[in-house]
Amino acid sequence: METMAKEDTIKALLFDVFGTVVDWRTSVARQLRPFLEQHGIQDDPHDVANAWRKKYQPALEEVRTGRRPFVKLDVLHRENLEKLLADYKVDVASLSEETLNDLNLIWHRLDPWPDSVAGLRRLKQRFIIAPMSNGNIRLMTDMAKGAGLPWDAILGAEVVKAYKTSPEAYLRTAEVLDLRPEEICMVAAHNSDLAAARKCGFHTAFVLRPTEYGPDQKTNLRAEQDWDWVADDMGQLATKMNCPA
Amino acid sequence: METMAKEDTIKALLFDVFGTVVDWRTSVARQLRPFLEQHGIQDDPHDVANAWRKKYQPALEEVRTGRRPFVKLDVLHRENLEKLLADYKVDVASLSEETLNDLNLIWHRLDPWPDSVAGLRRLKQRFIIAPMSNGNIRLMTDMAKGAGLPWDAILGAEVVKAYKTSPEAYLRTAEVLDLRPEEICMVAAHNSDLAAARKCGFHTAFVLRPTEYGPDQKTNLRAEQDWDWVADDMGQLATKMNCPA
Repeated sequence: METMAKEDTIKALLFDVFGTVVDWRTSVARQLRPFLEQHGIQDDPHDVANAWRKKYQPALEEVRTGRRPFVKLDVLHRENLEKLLADYKVDVASLSEETLNDLNLIWHRLDPWPDSVAGLRRLKQRFIIAPMSNGNIRLMTDMAKGAGLPWDAILGAEVVKAYKTSPEAYLRTAEVLDLRPEEICMVAAHNSDLAAARKCGFHTAFVLRPTEYGPDQKTNLRAEQDWDWVADDMGQLATKMNCPA
Repeated sequence: METMAKEDTIKALLFDVFGTVVDWRTSVARQLRPFLEQHGIQDDPHDVANAWRKKYQPALEEVRTGRRPFVKLDVLHRENLEKLLADYKVDVASLSEETLNDLNLIWHRLDPWPDSVAGLRRLKQRFIIAPMSNGNIRLMTDMAKGAGLPWDAILGAEVVKAYKTSPEAYLRTAEVLDLRPEEICMVAAHNSDLAAARKCGFHTAFVLRPTEYGPDQKTNLRAEQDWDWVADDMGQLATKMNCPA
């Protein structure tokens, strides 16, 4: 009797996006550069990008703990932007709403890692593929349109009103898909995301992104648990999950 | 000075799906036929499809009026299926869960009208395109995958927990998209859907589907208000909205 391969139980792949599918750091840095030059800020734009991103988890934590009702990521990004600019001694009040909004929308315009689009196209032939990101629906939609990400649906925090790594984010998304947790595989470059998904019963796939935070990255350089799949990029994941070329 | 065309204000097109994008009647009839034959039901499968659909608006109305909390359309379709089978003297209790579920999933497997996919591809080059259907996310995702509908996102009732033609369905979807209502155009083959969208400030496009209910259709055979666009099919709509060929 033919044994069933592990991927035969999977109906949907849910993807972390920032860092796993797109390279937010170099995309944000590139788009920040003209503004920084114009305002005489001589820091490396990559460091400014990292500083903006560093305010992300604490902002999510306010919502995850229930200290703050759910608001979408565009709102948190905007608050963090204003704090970031203040950190760099920019007078936020002197900037137009248009300028601030355009800076905030940088997160809607991130470039994929070179292997992402081709890998997703292969995975899509066998599975439902959707982002399960903390990014809001419009953000993910704009990004997909700009980068050519071939999602079947836009899922994630805004649909279920919960931010990863809260268990509600995973479990409510499984309900939306009308799937048992084990029929879903979470795909992420972050061990913490996969650990939370596994606790909810999801299968897990780790995709290595060793330069997400730049050349000196110290975290997520290896699989820290025996994830169901471990791959060096999205194409290798497609191959390991027996997707057509 | 160049005058601005009306479509220049539009950022997103939101589509009614059942009847406007897909031909639910012939798709449901075709998939019901083997079951009906097996159970000795000699009615025309198209009439059975219409009878199932006829239970749709009353079920939605329970939710729209607040008499019942929001539940997704798969649940309502299933309840209506069991009533429908009882109407045709089928002993529902004698059927397996698998059979009932497979019948219910007929609504996930509907064929597009012949012009839908090509028209949507053209419209997608200029606008965000998404379903704003009463169908739930998984239903719309399965349908898109099966029919090749190139949506940028899956929006609709389940995302905003409100069924059309409640104003909340339109207004909350505009919030999700972070667009002003006038930056959105509702596309539908149903005058009532467009009337509700217009009351919320949306632009409107009527696509004629004169055989949605079969050759003797009596309703929605013409635009009943001066909708912003009126087209005979999705390709003509793309042309009228100045989308590339």
